[in-house]
Amino acid sequence: MAVEVKSLNEECGVFGIWNDKNAAQLTYFGLHALQHRGQEGAGIVTLQKDGRMKRQRGLGLLADVFKDPESIDKLDGHSAIGHVRYGTSGSRGIENIQPLVFHYVDKDFAMAHNGNLTNAVTLRKKLEDDGAYFQSNSDTEVLMHLIKRQEQPTFEKQLIDALQVIQGGFAYLILTKKCLYAALDPNGFRPMVIGQMKNGVYVVASETCALDAIGARFVRDVLPGELIKIDDNGYEVLHFTKKTQLSICSMEFIYFARPDSSIYGVNVYQARQRMGMQVAKENSLDVDIVVGVPNSALPAATGVAQVLGVPDEMGLIKNQYSARTFIQPTQSLREKGVKMKLAALEAVVKGKRVCLVDDSIVRGTTSKYIINLLKEAGATEVHVLIASPPLKFPCFYGIDIEKTQELMAANMTVGQMRHQIGADSLHFLSLEGLVDAVGLKQDAPNEGLCVAYFNGDYPTPLYDYEEKYEAPKTLEDHKLSAVKGERNA
Amino acid sequence: MAVEVKSLNEECGVFGIWNDKNAAQLTYFGLHALQHRGQEGAGIVTLQKDGRMKRQRGLGLLADVFKDPESIDKLDGHSAIGHVRYGTSGSRGIENIQPLVFHYVDKDFAMAHNGNLTNAVTLRKKLEDDGAYFQSNSDTEVLMHLIKRQEQPTFEKQLIDALQVIQGGFAYLILTKKCLYAALDPNGFRPMVIGQMKNGVYVVASETCALDAIGARFVRDVLPGELIKIDDNGYEVLHFTKKTQLSICSMEFIYFARPDSSIYGVNVYQARQRMGMQVAKENSLDVDIVVGVPNSALPAATGVAQVLGVPDEMGLIKNQYSARTFIQPTQSLREKGVKMKLAALEAVVKGKRVCLVDDSIVRGTTSKYIINLLKEAGATEVHVLIASPPLKFPCFYGIDIEKTQELMAANMTVGQMRHQIGADSLHFLSLEGLVDAVGLKQDAPNEGLCVAYFNGDYPTPLYDYEEKYEAPKTLEDHKLSAVKGERNA
Amino acid sequence: MAVEVKSLNEECGVFGIWNDKNAAQLTYFGLHALQHRGQEGAGIVTLQKDGRMKRQRGLGLLADVFKDPESIDKLDGHSAIGHVRYGTSGSRGIENIQPLVFHYVDKDFAMAHNGNLTNAVTLRKKLEDDGAYFQSNSDTEVLMHLIKRQEQPTFEKQLIDALQVIQGGFAYLILTKKCLYAALDPNGFRPMVIGQMKNGVYVVASETCALDAIGARFVRDVLPGELIKIDDNGYEVLHFTKKTQLSICSMEFIYFARPDSSIYGVNVYQARQRMGMQVAKENSLDVDIVVGVPNSALPAATGVAQVLGVPDEMGLIKNQYSARTFIQPTQSLREKGVKMKLAALEAVVKGKRVCLVDDSIVRGTTSKYIINLLKEAGATEVHVLIASPPLKFPCFYGIDIEKTQELMAANMTVGQMRHQIGADSLHFLSLEGLVDAVGLKQDAPNEGLCVAYFNGDYPTPLYDYEEKYEAPKTLEDHKLSAVKGERNA
Amino acid sequence: MAVEVKSLNEECGVFGIWNDKNAAQLTYFGLHALQHRGQEGAGIVTLQKDGRMKRQRGLGLLADVFKDPESIDKLDGHSAIGHVRYGTSGSRGIENIQPLVFHYVDKDFAMAHNGNLTNAVTLRKKLEDDGAYFQSNSDTEVLMHLIKRQEQPTFEKQLIDALQVIQGGFAYLILTKKCLYAALDPNGFRPMVIGQMKNGVYVVASETCALDAIGARFVRDVLPGELIKIDDNGYEVLHFTKKTQLSICSMEFIYFARPDSSIYGVNVYQARQRMGMQVAKENSLDVDIVVGVPNSALPAATGVAQVLGVPDEMGLIKNQYSARTFIQPTQSLREKGVKMKLAALEAVVKGKRVCLVDDSIVRGTTSKYIINLLKEAGATEVHVLIASPPLKFPCFYGIDIEKTQELMAANMTVGQMRHQIGADSLHFLSLEGLVDAVGLKQDAPNEGLCVAYFNGDYPTPLYDYEEKYEAPKTLEDHKLSAVKGERNA
Repeated sequence: MAVEVKSLNEECGVFGIWNDKNAAQLTYFGLHALQHRGQEGAGIVTLQKDGRMKRQRGLGLLADVFKDPESIDKLDGHSAIGHVRYGTSGSRGIENIQPLVFHYVDKDFAMAHNGNLTNAVTLRKKLEDDGAYFQSNSDTEVLMHLIKRQEQPTFEKQLIDALQVIQGGFAYLILTKKCLYAALDPNGFRPMVIGQMKNGVYVVASETCALDAIGARFVRDVLPGELIKIDDNGYEVLHFTKKTQLSICSMEFIYFARPDSSIYGVNVYQARQRMGMQVAKENSLDVDIVVGVPNSALPAATGVAQVLGVPDEMGLIKNQYSARTFIQPTQSLREKGVKMKLAALEAVVKGKRVCLVDDSIVRGTTSKYIINLLKEAGATEVHVLIASPPLKFPCFYGIDIEKTQELMAANMTVGQMRHQIGADSLHFLSLEGLVDAVGLKQDAPNEGLCVAYFNGDYPTPLYDYEEKYEAPKTLEDHKLSAVKGERNA
Repeated sequence: MAVEVKSLNEECGVFGIWNDKNAAQLTYFGLHALQHRGQEGAGIVTLQKDGRMKRQRGLGLLADVFKDPESIDKLDGHSAIGHVRYGTSGSRGIENIQPLVFHYVDKDFAMAHNGNLTNAVTLRKKLEDDGAYFQSNSDTEVLMHLIKRQEQPTFEKQLIDALQVIQGGFAYLILTKKCLYAALDPNGFRPMVIGQMKNGVYVVASETCALDAIGARFVRDVLPGELIKIDDNGYEVLHFTKKTQLSICSMEFIYFARPDSSIYGVNVYQARQRMGMQVAKENSLDVDIVVGVPNSALPAATGVAQVLGVPDEMGLIKNQYSARTFIQPTQSLREKGVKMKLAALEAVVKGKRVCLVDDSIVRGTTSKYIINLLKEAGATEVHVLIASPPLKFPCFYGIDIEKTQELMAANMTVGQMRHQIGADSLHFLSLEGLVDAVGLKQDAPNEGLCVAYFNGDYPTPLYDYEEKYEAPKTLEDHKLSAVKGERNA
Repeated sequence: MAVEVKSLNEECGVFGIWNDKNAAQLTYFGLHALQHRGQEGAGIVTLQKDGRMKRQRGLGLLADVFKDPESIDKLDGHSAIGHVRYGTSGSRGIENIQPLVFHYVDKDFAMAHNGNLTNAVTLRKKLEDDGAYFQSNSDTEVLMHLIKRQEQPTFEKQLIDALQVIQGGFAYLILTKKCLYAALDPNGFRPMVIGQMKNGVYVVASETCALDAIGARFVRDVLPGELIKIDDNGYEVLHFTKKTQLSICSMEFIYFARPDSSIYGVNVYQARQRMGMQVAKENSLDVDIVVGVPNSALPAATGVAQVLGVPDEMGLIKNQYSARTFIQPTQSLREKGVKMKLAALEAVVKGKRVCLVDDSIVRGTTSKYIINLLKEAGATEVHVLIASPPLKFPCFYGIDIEKTQELMAANMTVGQMRHQIGADSLHFLSLEGLVDAVGLKQDAPNEGLCVAYFNGDYPTPLYDYEEKYEAPKTLEDHKLSAVKGERNA
Repeated sequence: MAVEVKSLNEECGVFGIWNDKNAAQLTYFGLHALQHRGQEGAGIVTLQKDGRMKRQRGLGLLADVFKDPESIDKLDGHSAIGHVRYGTSGSRGIENIQPLVFHYVDKDFAMAHNGNLTNAVTLRKKLEDDGAYFQSNSDTEVLMHLIKRQEQPTFEKQLIDALQVIQGGFAYLILTKKCLYAALDPNGFRPMVIGQMKNGVYVVASETCALDAIGARFVRDVLPGELIKIDDNGYEVLHFTKKTQLSICSMEFIYFARPDSSIYGVNVYQARQRMGMQVAKENSLDVDIVVGVPNSALPAATGVAQVLGVPDEMGLIKNQYSARTFIQPTQSLREKGVKMKLAALEAVVKGKRVCLVDDSIVRGTTSKYIINLLKEAGATEVHVLIASPPLKFPCFYGIDIEKTQELMAANMTVGQMRHQIGADSLHFLSLEGLVDAVGLKQDAPNEGLCVAYFNGDYPTPLYDYEEKYEAPKTLEDHKLSAVKGERNA
């Protein structure tokens, strides 16, 4: 097996807490609220009184990893960090499940990571030449090796130096004997927030929904380039760099984050609703009903319905048990297998002109299938509104977006796409419409949003990825400014 | 451990197929679509060429029981029946997971059951006195013993006689070497339908959504008192009784069935939408937004919003991973544990007068919690519309509705309930409104609907349950006609 | 799958205890001492105060079934029975693991069985015609059905009548709300003993080694035709028949029982030692060393060495971990796979004339392999002494001896056998020598020993087995008296 | 949890093979023959064509780790190393199960280890200061870090330098893309041998019994200070040091190694037999029978019996299933729990003067229990012969011998010991007798045997252990020469 250094650091969720007697259980609740950010594996590490760490981790959902009701109780200790991990095919198994714990003769460290380093391969090779070896494929271990090699008198100073060496998107939690650190990359590609419980205890999480889940109030977003230090005295804001410029991932608003989370003050549900309103305004349609693809596109569908002035109906039913099915249908039954996830509601769509709303189109196969499902159920027309612009460029900052050649919009015009998926019409939200609908209003390009998926303007150089980067076919003359290193954050 | 004869026959889903080479896999898909009818256990039995049966069954979701991808392949055979089972606390374990298989020296039988017999204890005692003993707690075994004791020359005639002896609600599937039988009780308390695949193969299922899942067309509902026989010649309709009168469970329409299913021609999603419209018409409210309790009350909420003319918003988010959590929060963290399932969307409800829509109130604890959640999130008023009448009476025909003393509406007036749950107002759908909204329009009391939960008019005598039956406190002088045996189907 | 009614009732071990607060744990210890009698599965049933039974059972060794240290504690109750089961290929799985528990509306029964009924198929067919059906393949269920069908006023009388209907070899333990029964067939084919602990509590077990394991003193053997009843008043001896004649299985002395057990006063280790002495006396050999096949033939080897006056050496080493290996060597590695169990000690056997001692020869493949192993290790000659007569006839009373056609001695002369296994000479113990060496000295044919394996004189008719019985090839004119029903106990 | 750096490197077994298509299966067979060297965990690593390694490892016996019959097949690759590990209480779990695999960007390494480094803590601290961190507690990782830090142009030269830095007892197997290395410490504390299969393939194993198990012929012992390199050209002998002096562990001969193994030409079974003869010669006894403690003392017992001229009888029976029992008897039943392992044979020992033979006395509790068992069974006298000298000093080279204060002989005179265990007399083999009986006849102190357990003459300085070393109470003025660094190998 070739080492795929980069395959494992995709979209994830992190949670940390300092000094609460229910540390492990609260981390469990926090991670549970973040489960949508990763279902491949989960883990919790607690800090013991003697400075040693205890860990439980495993493959699968949080509920699988902690299915023994006593497993949480065994994780005693007053501080903890936890991690849920997104499933990717190239994973090597349990050794990559975070948090990672690093044992030394006289102390332990634990680390959890959401994001993707763009210079990890280069750094890893350099570290191995210097005597390091790796137990996992994760960027977490790269950072740990870097920290230990910085010539600085304290761990904190080593950490600050090491954070200046890594590139890309990252949101790290680091638990030590003395404190809990949270570090965010200079572009703030990934979300991370600080909360406080009624008893004064501070927590850090990927999304605000995890704060709500444990009854903590929102304190502030972690900002680009910050290193937050939480200890018994409260929290302190350090900076490992001042050269920062916000470009948070627009896919968090479009698809990833939970609707009840807010990022930089913007509620995700309402942002999606506005995306729906905007795409409907940009594309006037004459239809009978609006149907959103459950569950992700339902907020946008309410916005569409409001603008179009027609009913928002539940024309598609999602089987809530389909996530955990391992049975693969044989070739001849594949179509039936797909029906396990979605069903069209004939009584609702029969004889209707349907406006189908989805959040995005990646490969297009699902769209084609859904449109077919609606037509089989008797829909006379299916017009598709996508509440985001066409996805043409891959992500290198922590989201496992398909390769360029597999992105439908990187290889086809909108007209070709419409034909391919069998829609009567197909419309996307404009890039400006997206930026307006999110409404971050930050003093930064695209109001602080990374929209590289849509226009290829990567906010940073791509480092290790420059070589394998491929421009979309439909944009063969696309000038990849970032790749050439002309811009930097 | 006392034998609780009746605890295990509650709401379930069944699926059967005759003579298709993919019998086990299609049964898997069918059961998957019926998973909402039972999550405690699942099983599939296939018929081998030599007349013997193979079975795989287990505790948990279908995906847990068949997590080995090869497990389905091992169930070779051209005919199959399957079962998903509802979770109840008093279960004894694996031996009660259906289908049950009965081995004889020269043949096997398999049986699956949805429903509840009202004379099972009496029958069981009689059978035991006659030399029978039971490996499980299920009504399935009662029927098997009865069949073998009928003095008739053929299995089919024995079966017909035995079906005349049992009382209550039942939908049985019985697989033999020669054919697949489906039997429905004389009141048709539980739904069951026949479908046909494109290759001509017949299937039977609890709901039409299972037909859609495998691409089968709906043929007809199984009617009260019918014994359907499916073999290589197609299907044949036999009757074990002609004294029938439809009274299908109204809770199937209100809560249990999947929205994309249709029962006696009525689509469940639209019926719920009409219940929402009806309760909104019966109770005029001045609110800013409508919020449905996800997922069951979302259809009714669309109806309410339409009538009230205010937006239907996603004010509550359901964590889609909460079903499978085994970690019990400690006492001090119980409230946080409850937050694992639902979150209120502050951005949506803050400063708003909310009309909260739910399908029903059982104990009232969840309602109280949700209202509190909305108010904490800033809702100024919470008015509650319940899209069904107050639940006052227990069910004895196959749904594990709480005991009378635990039903909130059996012990309080609507005013007391409103106060208890902390709502600004509380309104229920009228019984007439329910019957109209469902709109079965059958020539039978309540248009063919069993509404005993709401008015105590049980369509049959209660047999073994007569003694322990308790009238609701709020209706102490309630005349339980059915108990006295004055009516019968 | 065809029902193989008889495949599952072979050699097993049983243990029962009445009224001790550590019932489950003592049963665990007792079964542990009987583990050599069955490794396929194990189970323990305890009697609760309310008359209900609790059971834990599973596939594999006792230690596997009870690997959770708390599993024993969960089996509360003051009385218990347990069972270890011999592994056979045709087993159906967990439903056949004993003890079986039979639930009735108002009470439970548990049963465990060692032996094999010769008329089980006939009885089972008759019972099925009478309305019974079977959850397992075991003779235990046959007896239970029979009991319930006896027209007698009490369970005990029903039991006595039922015991008169069954034929063959059986040692049953039956636990009821009121007492513990132990029943032994009229020929006493299988061993069963009563013991008493220092606190006065009575126990029953297959062998005396289980009494020693819990510190109980030996009270008496259970005798043929006895029904022992143990309750709070002590033990009582009932008889279900007086037509009895002891013919205990000689293979118990030769191979099955543990060396530290005593049967009818005869210690098994010493009996084996005497068998070794006798076969050495009958066959004078000129050799350098004696090597016993570990572990079963080591006692006989000491006897042989003593008579021959040469050293008894450990020329073969048995890998003590080989029992639990599931890895099957590929065809090309099969020989190496066999080496996993035994190794020859070159330093001991090289250049030596070896007298190899084994307890018996079944198929001859193991003998051939061992002789080859010794010769490869440098033995110049290998003379084989078998401490029992040639095995020519199958057993129908509870030991899973190979079919006639697979018994080497049923198909070859001793000379042919010697040639086949590659021995320099091959000698068996004479039948008279066996009877003398065991030395039961009971007033019965062969001093009370069943020697049908060696001479085909079955002490009872074979009932269901008569048809499929095959005489050994080497004895084609053998007159199977028992088959013709001329003798009976 | 405090890091117990040294707790995990105790007695183990290793096996390696280069370039055979059945590498994994042969490693399985080899490890199976070495299972007695470690039952806590097992693992196998295979080398893929692309230079990457595959591993399966787990807790428990080899048969538990590879219970899925396909698990071996999945380990494709033509070269492999494997490890079985001894159980110690302080283990941290799965991460310590060997072989360890070290992943680099462009290659992998695997390592397995038997032994214990005496300067591991010092080295580990130094390595951590230099930026290393550890995933496990094992000495294997220490060596890997050292290798990568040696400034040498090739891996082999790095390895040779690193082997010069470590101190103590070690037998390493190291698998790389290009070859298989085996390295033995300068004193050869642990055994390791080279074998060759009929197809020319070379293997390395802890004991010769593993060679026999796969049909490989013995080629030679690996000698102290050697680094054996096996690749496609055969094997090559390198040396990492020439300052060597054999002092192989005497406990390998006394207890650890399998009787059919030979070490430096001495067969272990015969060495034990000679120890028995020698201790009987040194201590004349008047007894009726000799009884060896099964299984380890049975070879010595044959020697004793021969010299005393009385029968060697099986007076104690070992339950072959006791190894895998997890049920802990409650306090009141502890004595019965102990009986699960051993039973005395009353028929053999009653009325007899018994000479009990054991291989060694550690804490003395087992001896006390066995003597009591024999006396309860009727032995009139029990005289104890121990076929090795009194164990007074701990081991630091890879055997988990109890701490000084727990060694009975370090705290009591022989007279006190005799009294304590309840023997009628107690005699140990003399140190000279031991050296003679083993008969290594090498040109080195004690003929090449390490006898530090008995006289405290450690062949090397103790490094990290010097501080915590405690002299036996009975020898308070003992001059620990090795500790003072006066001698070195």
